[in-house]
Amino acid sequence: MLRNAHQSPTVRARSAGTAPLRRPGAVAVRNPGAGRMYAQLGHPLSRGDENARLLAYEDDVKRAFDTIVPVLKRISAIQHEADFETRAQTLARAELGFELPEAILADAWVEQLDMRRLFAWCVFQTYKRFCDDFYGATPTGAAEEFERFLQDCGFHSLDISPCADGRLAHLVRYVLRLSPRAVRRKSYAGAMFDVEDSVQKWTEIELMRHREGKPNAADAPTRYLKMAVYHFSSTHPQSEGCAAHGSDTQKAAAAALERLYSFRRAIENGFCCGASIDLLLIGVDTDTDAIRVHIPDIRGEMALERYVDTQTIYAQTTRLQATDAQRAIMEAIRECSNDVAPGMAELVTRLIENNFSQIDYVMNKHGEHYPDIGHAERFIGAGVGFEDIQLRNLMYFAYLDTVEEGAADMDVGIRIFTGLNVTHGLPVPIVVRFDYHGQVPGSRDRARQRCARVAQAITERYAELFSKGLLHVLQVARDCDTSQPIEIFACTVNPVLAGGH
Amino acid sequence: MLRNAHQSPTVRARSAGTAPLRRPGAVAVRNPGAGRMYAQLGHPLSRGDENARLLAYEDDVKRAFDTIVPVLKRISAIQHEADFETRAQTLARAELGFELPEAILADAWVEQLDMRRLFAWCVFQTYKRFCDDFYGATPTGAAEEFERFLQDCGFHSLDISPCADGRLAHLVRYVLRLSPRAVRRKSYAGAMFDVEDSVQKWTEIELMRHREGKPNAADAPTRYLKMAVYHFSSTHPQSEGCAAHGSDTQKAAAAALERLYSFRRAIENGFCCGASIDLLLIGVDTDTDAIRVHIPDIRGEMALERYVDTQTIYAQTTRLQATDAQRAIMEAIRECSNDVAPGMAELVTRLIENNFSQIDYVMNKHGEHYPDIGHAERFIGAGVGFEDIQLRNLMYFAYLDTVEEGAADMDVGIRIFTGLNVTHGLPVPIVVRFDYHGQVPGSRDRARQRCARVAQAITERYAELFSKGLLHVLQVARDCDTSQPIEIFACTVNPVLAGGH
Repeated sequence: MLRNAHQSPTVRARSAGTAPLRRPGAVAVRNPGAGRMYAQLGHPLSRGDENARLLAYEDDVKRAFDTIVPVLKRISAIQHEADFETRAQTLARAELGFELPEAILADAWVEQLDMRRLFAWCVFQTYKRFCDDFYGATPTGAAEEFERFLQDCGFHSLDISPCADGRLAHLVRYVLRLSPRAVRRKSYAGAMFDVEDSVQKWTEIELMRHREGKPNAADAPTRYLKMAVYHFSSTHPQSEGCAAHGSDTQKAAAAALERLYSFRRAIENGFCCGASIDLLLIGVDTDTDAIRVHIPDIRGEMALERYVDTQTIYAQTTRLQATDAQRAIMEAIRECSNDVAPGMAELVTRLIENNFSQIDYVMNKHGEHYPDIGHAERFIGAGVGFEDIQLRNLMYFAYLDTVEEGAADMDVGIRIFTGLNVTHGLPVPIVVRFDYHGQVPGSRDRARQRCARVAQAITERYAELFSKGLLHVLQVARDCDTSQPIEIFACTVNPVLAGGH
Repeated sequence: MLRNAHQSPTVRARSAGTAPLRRPGAVAVRNPGAGRMYAQLGHPLSRGDENARLLAYEDDVKRAFDTIVPVLKRISAIQHEADFETRAQTLARAELGFELPEAILADAWVEQLDMRRLFAWCVFQTYKRFCDDFYGATPTGAAEEFERFLQDCGFHSLDISPCADGRLAHLVRYVLRLSPRAVRRKSYAGAMFDVEDSVQKWTEIELMRHREGKPNAADAPTRYLKMAVYHFSSTHPQSEGCAAHGSDTQKAAAAALERLYSFRRAIENGFCCGASIDLLLIGVDTDTDAIRVHIPDIRGEMALERYVDTQTIYAQTTRLQATDAQRAIMEAIRECSNDVAPGMAELVTRLIENNFSQIDYVMNKHGEHYPDIGHAERFIGAGVGFEDIQLRNLMYFAYLDTVEEGAADMDVGIRIFTGLNVTHGLPVPIVVRFDYHGQVPGSRDRARQRCARVAQAITERYAELFSKGLLHVLQVARDCDTSQPIEIFACTVNPVLAGGH
């Protein structure tokens, strides 16, 4: 993240096409000539059925967001006609799946329809529906299977800190094909995760093991695994990499590795009795979603130049039988680090296999690389939570407690959306969200207060945009201790939304 | 805290007199006729030698701060004389114990001496010296003795949240006579402590017991004890109580009790296997430093109207022999709550006995009550740390991570100091401090960044004062993992200070 927006909505619209679902593994060249030969068949380890499901989900969600502008254009065109309100609602119901706020429509005759408010309202409403679907439907079986596998590999917890860039938002569910419920994800600009925050999480997990034997007993020979994920762009390495590190891949990787080692030193120095953790460094090519895994040696040390690249192994193994391909992955891992711990090797093997499906996914849908190499997010998310955001380039994420601390990240987000929306006269939609643990008394009230405080700080910091109707804020939260959907506290667009559409 | 300042510096000066130390327990009526009869003798359980030591310390520190204005007045008077710089430095060395920054003195001839900068510089310099003394001299023996006693009473940790009011800053060391090293203190406006923060501390302590057997083994039958401390004014109950609760004693007590129960519910709901904690609610009369202890019953429940008042027991027992007085305390506790747990009764007995010394301390020095009933702080402290502040009305404390979150507390502090300093043309001195754990890699850098961020937010929020030289900020931090003194990062007065005076 921290990159300048340079893409127009045209490019964004192209990337979110509504291609009909294809037979898994079949030819899928939307961009004729761009797909390489092996893409025509798919990798033997790739899971076509899963790809189809994930594609349908991504298409559904992005289509919902990308339908907003065309529908509003049509509504705008009829705003001065006689039966405007009825026709607008009919159109909205049919195309967007929800009705528009009557108050906004009813005021159109005075001057003209307030398209900015309407646009923000539609984005927020679409976000809410998408969230409700997510919490209504996520199966937990996959999470349990992965937790067992993880323990077999020697880890009782997987804590991932990717870069906060929207192009990594799908890391867990898509790129690595893991269950969002089975891992912890905290995104930070440049993957520069907060060591104190991680130490605190480690403390919680270890106490749980001691007191409750969850996820396993404290004397089980497993460790806490921290993974940091940096990123780069294979097609535009100088401009579309991680701007928190000046699009310098080497620097991004080195900084993430140094942060990992800092975390381990903090545990080893801060706690006695041989306390330690395991580490893993991964790089993602945001153009293709292929990954580099920096394989640790037996002492847990990694090196920037010592990694396995899935794009390469994919190419080498795509014509093999599945079992031979698996063996080739394991060999590549051992060649990279010959004394890697067996459990770590097993986990990495799974991650690489999983990533093959994603390589296919991208190639089948887009050819050699994504069409939206740059930013094309639909809204900004600010706060803590957003577990439901598992799609690429959907949301620009500013993980923050206060605007004072997160000002740099927010400024970048506003700059990106100035390019994406404001220059086209559309507002920046910002969702402020603070998930909480309902079992802690008063936590909901505090979440509500935090939402209000951050929303106010945002409208104050970007007062000029806000005063022109070019910035709107939705305040939401979710109780993590239940399976309830998000709750809406307030919205700058219209109090009606908070009423529970 | 959260009260309007209404006292002039005259009142403050009166309270910080330099009375010669008196024989412990002897007659001490500075305000003739104000001390009650029993004050003439002192309580048999009161520790006169300790009082003398504490008095000397308080007098030393406050005298150091209160000497600044008279000395600067004398320096101001000679600023246009020939050998000004030399004479000023001689005076400063003799009266303040340090030299003044030459750059400020040297510029006096151009227009006139910048008294605001000079005043802020002296306050910061005095704070630094006082801190250095604190960390250079605090004995740890008392802490160990109290920790053992605490465990014998059935508690492995004492976590105290008083109100952030400067009139409670001496709670631990003076009012309750405990070792600052043996307890945790986190102050919040209105004693409204953060439940999540306390849960996190509990988690750390419990993991330490499980992993390292510190302070005792996890299976030892002891509990974490959380104490909340509200306050009130016996002489001006309607105006000089806790303004966070509108000077309503009942409301202040009820809110603190509710917060305690919330914390316990958070532990009981959030953790299984019978996890729970013990609670204690105490009220302090900020006019006399007498306390009310709300004695819990065997189930840990307290009631607002069920408390032991030390002022009353003091009066009832002051003519008894020491052992009889102790027995009377225990009887009063049991009369208040007949099924109180024996360990809790023992702890409360000690606290009440300790408080008798403080009642004597206040009466011997000031008579019936403090002369500075209202605010008379010398500077504002903002951030996390300040373990060295164990003196009443020395510092207005805004415990905060960001100005965004702590804005309400900061605003009150600025309002208080507008009354105390700005109306007299003197600046508001603010110490921004973030203590850190040096064993966590990068923590010093992060503390430095936090200092800089908060200092900037303060100068932005109070830009008008700052631009007029009526607000100065010193940035400091301390590594809690060592016995080193505070480190100065930056200062708005003069970069020289940071150079290490």
